[in-house]
Amino acid sequence: MSRARLRDLGVTTGTLPTGAWNAITDVPGVRVGYSTLVHDQPAIVRTGVTAIWPRGPELWTDAVFAGIHSFNGNGEMTGWAWIAEQGMLASPICITNTHCVGVVRDAVCAYAVRARVPMPWLLPVVAETYDGWLSDAGTFPITTAHAFAALDGAASGPIAEGNVGGGTGMICHEFKGGTGTASRVAQVAGDAYTVGALVQANYGARELLRVDGVPVGREIGLDVVPSHRDAPRDSGSIIVVLATDAPLLPIQCQRLARRATTGLAWVGGVGFNGSGDIFLAFATGNHVPHGEAITTLRMLSADNMNPLFQAAAEATEEAILNALTAAETMVGRQSRTAHALPLDLLTATMRRYRPAP
Amino acid sequence: MSRARLRDLGVTTGTLPTGAWNAITDVPGVRVGYSTLVHDQPAIVRTGVTAIWPRGPELWTDAVFAGIHSFNGNGEMTGWAWIAEQGMLASPICITNTHCVGVVRDAVCAYAVRARVPMPWLLPVVAETYDGWLSDAGTFPITTAHAFAALDGAASGPIAEGNVGGGTGMICHEFKGGTGTASRVAQVAGDAYTVGALVQANYGARELLRVDGVPVGREIGLDVVPSHRDAPRDSGSIIVVLATDAPLLPIQCQRLARRATTGLAWVGGVGFNGSGDIFLAFATGNHVPHGEAITTLRMLSADNMNPLFQAAAEATEEAILNALTAAETMVGRQSRTAHALPLDLLTATMRRYRPAP
Amino acid sequence: MSRARLRDLGVTTGTLPTGAWNAITDVPGVRVGYSTLVHDQPAIVRTGVTAIWPRGPELWTDAVFAGIHSFNGNGEMTGWAWIAEQGMLASPICITNTHCVGVVRDAVCAYAVRARVPMPWLLPVVAETYDGWLSDAGTFPITTAHAFAALDGAASGPIAEGNVGGGTGMICHEFKGGTGTASRVAQVAGDAYTVGALVQANYGARELLRVDGVPVGREIGLDVVPSHRDAPRDSGSIIVVLATDAPLLPIQCQRLARRATTGLAWVGGVGFNGSGDIFLAFATGNHVPHGEAITTLRMLSADNMNPLFQAAAEATEEAILNALTAAETMVGRQSRTAHALPLDLLTATMRRYRPAP
Amino acid sequence: MSRARLRDLGVTTGTLPTGAWNAITDVPGVRVGYSTLVHDQPAIVRTGVTAIWPRGPELWTDAVFAGIHSFNGNGEMTGWAWIAEQGMLASPICITNTHCVGVVRDAVCAYAVRARVPMPWLLPVVAETYDGWLSDAGTFPITTAHAFAALDGAASGPIAEGNVGGGTGMICHEFKGGTGTASRVAQVAGDAYTVGALVQANYGARELLRVDGVPVGREIGLDVVPSHRDAPRDSGSIIVVLATDAPLLPIQCQRLARRATTGLAWVGGVGFNGSGDIFLAFATGNHVPHGEAITTLRMLSADNMNPLFQAAAEATEEAILNALTAAETMVGRQSRTAHALPLDLLTATMRRYRPAP
Repeated sequence: MSRARLRDLGVTTGTLPTGAWNAITDVPGVRVGYSTLVHDQPAIVRTGVTAIWPRGPELWTDAVFAGIHSFNGNGEMTGWAWIAEQGMLASPICITNTHCVGVVRDAVCAYAVRARVPMPWLLPVVAETYDGWLSDAGTFPITTAHAFAALDGAASGPIAEGNVGGGTGMICHEFKGGTGTASRVAQVAGDAYTVGALVQANYGARELLRVDGVPVGREIGLDVVPSHRDAPRDSGSIIVVLATDAPLLPIQCQRLARRATTGLAWVGGVGFNGSGDIFLAFATGNHVPHGEAITTLRMLSADNMNPLFQAAAEATEEAILNALTAAETMVGRQSRTAHALPLDLLTATMRRYRPAP
Repeated sequence: MSRARLRDLGVTTGTLPTGAWNAITDVPGVRVGYSTLVHDQPAIVRTGVTAIWPRGPELWTDAVFAGIHSFNGNGEMTGWAWIAEQGMLASPICITNTHCVGVVRDAVCAYAVRARVPMPWLLPVVAETYDGWLSDAGTFPITTAHAFAALDGAASGPIAEGNVGGGTGMICHEFKGGTGTASRVAQVAGDAYTVGALVQANYGARELLRVDGVPVGREIGLDVVPSHRDAPRDSGSIIVVLATDAPLLPIQCQRLARRATTGLAWVGGVGFNGSGDIFLAFATGNHVPHGEAITTLRMLSADNMNPLFQAAAEATEEAILNALTAAETMVGRQSRTAHALPLDLLTATMRRYRPAP
Repeated sequence: MSRARLRDLGVTTGTLPTGAWNAITDVPGVRVGYSTLVHDQPAIVRTGVTAIWPRGPELWTDAVFAGIHSFNGNGEMTGWAWIAEQGMLASPICITNTHCVGVVRDAVCAYAVRARVPMPWLLPVVAETYDGWLSDAGTFPITTAHAFAALDGAASGPIAEGNVGGGTGMICHEFKGGTGTASRVAQVAGDAYTVGALVQANYGARELLRVDGVPVGREIGLDVVPSHRDAPRDSGSIIVVLATDAPLLPIQCQRLARRATTGLAWVGGVGFNGSGDIFLAFATGNHVPHGEAITTLRMLSADNMNPLFQAAAEATEEAILNALTAAETMVGRQSRTAHALPLDLLTATMRRYRPAP
Repeated sequence: MSRARLRDLGVTTGTLPTGAWNAITDVPGVRVGYSTLVHDQPAIVRTGVTAIWPRGPELWTDAVFAGIHSFNGNGEMTGWAWIAEQGMLASPICITNTHCVGVVRDAVCAYAVRARVPMPWLLPVVAETYDGWLSDAGTFPITTAHAFAALDGAASGPIAEGNVGGGTGMICHEFKGGTGTASRVAQVAGDAYTVGALVQANYGARELLRVDGVPVGREIGLDVVPSHRDAPRDSGSIIVVLATDAPLLPIQCQRLARRATTGLAWVGGVGFNGSGDIFLAFATGNHVPHGEAITTLRMLSADNMNPLFQAAAEATEEAILNALTAAETMVGRQSRTAHALPLDLLTATMRRYRPAP
């Protein structure tokens, strides 16, 4: 069966409407690019790089506001201290595998040098999840060129999901995981704001997986679709990047990032010990041009945050589910197989749990 | 229909077994006491104090380790800075209404003075949720004597739920809320540890309420059971106190506290802006006697935290649901009515969402 | 010898100019009031309440931005979670003794109820330091009326220092301590902004005391002016409140608050274990009217923060020193005496450390 | 004049005794190694890598406890989220230049792969300060081999200071800066514990520099020794690594790290906006062997932390001053010169501020 997005299967979660592409790129200006490495020689590699531009190349000198939340910090997100201190983000975000965070991080610096960005230094944001069960991570397969390709290839519009970019070798709830995205449009005080999520989903136990509350993981158990047996179940992670065009302050971006926890919980993530569950939210609704002494800003009132909070939770939930429904079964090193979530079993399970008439 | 606990209705959530009483008091040494004020003269008051002793009176000089997480900090928990700094808790925890945090906080100091505790000063932990929709909060009805009574009356064993103690005047998912409790027993490295939760549940929107994934709030909508219409839906809060007998360090208590977010999400809490969603976890598995220069401790390894994390999430979830199923319809000031969750509709809804054969 | 402010003694610290009154009240709109309790019957009491209004009574519905830093959290500052979450402050700040934080905290709520503030609830900010060495703290001497008096009596202009308000019974570097204030004017991008500090200084070891780098505490040792011998030296605290009229965001207020650490270090504070060294900074340069959906703000750029950082450090340093030079010798319970810093010895010491020609 | 350590010049700061080498290596088991790159072809490079092993190679499976504090987060320290979450450190710490954090970070992973460390993944701690004023940072000169060399070359005993390792191209208080170290021995409850500091000092304004309280920076002004004129004065940073053999918990390591702020303040650092002032403390007094379900630990009581706090502040202060007195004048790219602090002027200034008889 070919892969699909959750909504294409007739399954809807949440209550808010989606954006045009039901993707993080529904937030105007946000662009996403990938480098995907799937090869068996000289080593078996299933990995990649995902690049997210919060706005166009003007980003280097026109920061967005941002905030981070670590639900379970067994992971890496470089640039952490800077965002915690300043609440600003002035470089693209990348996500890759655990061993290659460094090369991608320096590559963003090199990209800026090449682009003659007028900043003497940068503190790029690069996060990771671990793909060493399928991919020979010890070969450090990512290069600067892969990072550049992801950065250069970034585009708006619909984006690929599943085994793509940094999400290539991921495993989620003991099914094949990967990259997923979704969005919501929230009505706030007479205006419509979009909240988009992109996740690199690599966490979770089978029996905890829920889809719109239905215990799909219990119903499609390890006897039906085998798990990756020999790895500790908790050696995963999930990175969530939330984008919005609402005019939020840094402290409000932190609040938004925290709501990814809710969406993650709805799917069945409890933040296992070995998991790096780190969430970043940025808001493009304000401009912070470099060199301006006093910047005029707009702030959405605290009382109006609730629709955005719900949008963030819903977009995170659906982005994870899209990663699961899009990712295809993958065979990796040592002939290990990560099985995709069977879509026919998923829809059948959803039907069974529909209310009896 | 008389009120009940969730499990008495045949509804089970989560997978781990409960403790003997399915209560926070399943953690050995933990005691809970209440003062409940329900009177109409001289003012209409629906409020109270809940007191939780992490261990016996030796607590004053034999601290437990503790950690706090604020999912949404629109609330008060005194003693915050001290617990964040030291990771220790050496006084009982109280929960009351928003306007009376102070009197209860000083009352804990006075209680210690009366008990001739050999500490020159204390930084008590007192938290709150707001009951001003039903209760005339502006009359500041709680006194030192009410706090003393809750502290003095604390006991182990089964404990009251619903309209009791600090939970008396609460509203949750637009039904009558209140105090609830639950527990789980987790097997960790050959030992059994208990995680108990006590919540004061006063948050949430009707349509987000879920029971074991079933959208109960959508099914028992505002047309079926009216809400409290004139108050902003987000003017609530939830305090979660987690207890465990596992030998955790302060930093591990912080991690445990963070998992209350997951349990809250499963019931449908997204941390509305006006909500003080503040979680405290303490661990009695170590003793920290005052005056000892070097203390010997035991630490459960990080790799063994997962069962506790799941236990914390499950206990929080069920404690909230127990608050809802235990709380009775209450009429308060201005003849306002907070309606209890109808148990017959709840069980009927749960049956409808059971899988078709 | 009568008491004085540091500059009146010919001693200057730092490099930036002061405001008109060299006080926190140099920040336009900031008002300070005190209640001071010094009596021997029915108990020996040396305590009080300090109230700080960030702006006029419009504060209740026109918040200032604020941020907190805890250098050593062995103390209490209520309202912590709310400020950490929202970065806003919409009620006056009070400082009192440790045992009476609660009554003052609830009194601020009662004050708002009396003033018919249109907010259903409040999360007031009340901090404390411990005065139990001189004052019979176990009698809980502060009442709601004392808090009201401090709030009602608040005024702009020069303010009292030393044994006044919450600072009445304080001890600092083993001399008599108390309340102190100072201010600095910083030139930033063509504009002048004021940073004012008010401290309640109750911390520190004699031998660490420095004035403009001169080791005054070593020179005026315990053999010259006795200490309070029987109390642990670390049973103190310092609360620092920083005010500025610069247009800062919440995250920038947090940064400013952190710089109180620097000023404290310059005087000789290292954050002893028993000390509650908690710092709050607020910025009046923006208005956040309640009920506004979108608020327009101004933000000083990060690159322009340095003069404010230095101003915060300098104002904190001088405020502590003003507390020391203003506070008079006090006899308290059990005939204990806290000796004032001898001003003649101070000036003589400063002269001795002036550079040789 | 040849360079020296501060104490060799007859200048002493603080009151606690030093360890045998007055270096971070006084903490048993701690080893330090450097790679230093000073060459003019193919590009003018003044940079390097500093490696710190908290204990021997057993570190990979026998973690130390650790904690981080960011006084001003305009810098990078990878591994942040993991240390904040777990409080453990199980890999060597490296410090390098800003653009090369990534390559060094991945190199630590590669080093572990080469050493067949039985961990599937690592989250290494690599920090940085910016050397682009003297060094052509845009050439990304550091390679994996340089990191390996620093890691392999680590040794106990006296260690090099000044223009060495990651500190090679640093500038501090507008003099030539670099790497510095110092230590203190604190008597605590009948035991002696060592606290050692290693700094990479690259921050600060000339006029704020103080040595034991003496305003050396004002006395040796820009007219006497020129500054690096064309760079913004705040484009620096300081990384402080604190080590102790005391048996501290993670939360206590965080407390210790915070005291680096005090030592930094004593020298004249106020945390300029552009500065990454990030401090890490680790404690070797406990062992946390991987794979152990329950670990027995010892904890120094909170009441006994003060000597360690003072030791941390003093060691940080002297380590910075040692960096200044050890670093030699350096000429870098574009023929720029960073002038060393003149030792004769320093000692003459110190004499002038000695008390008059």
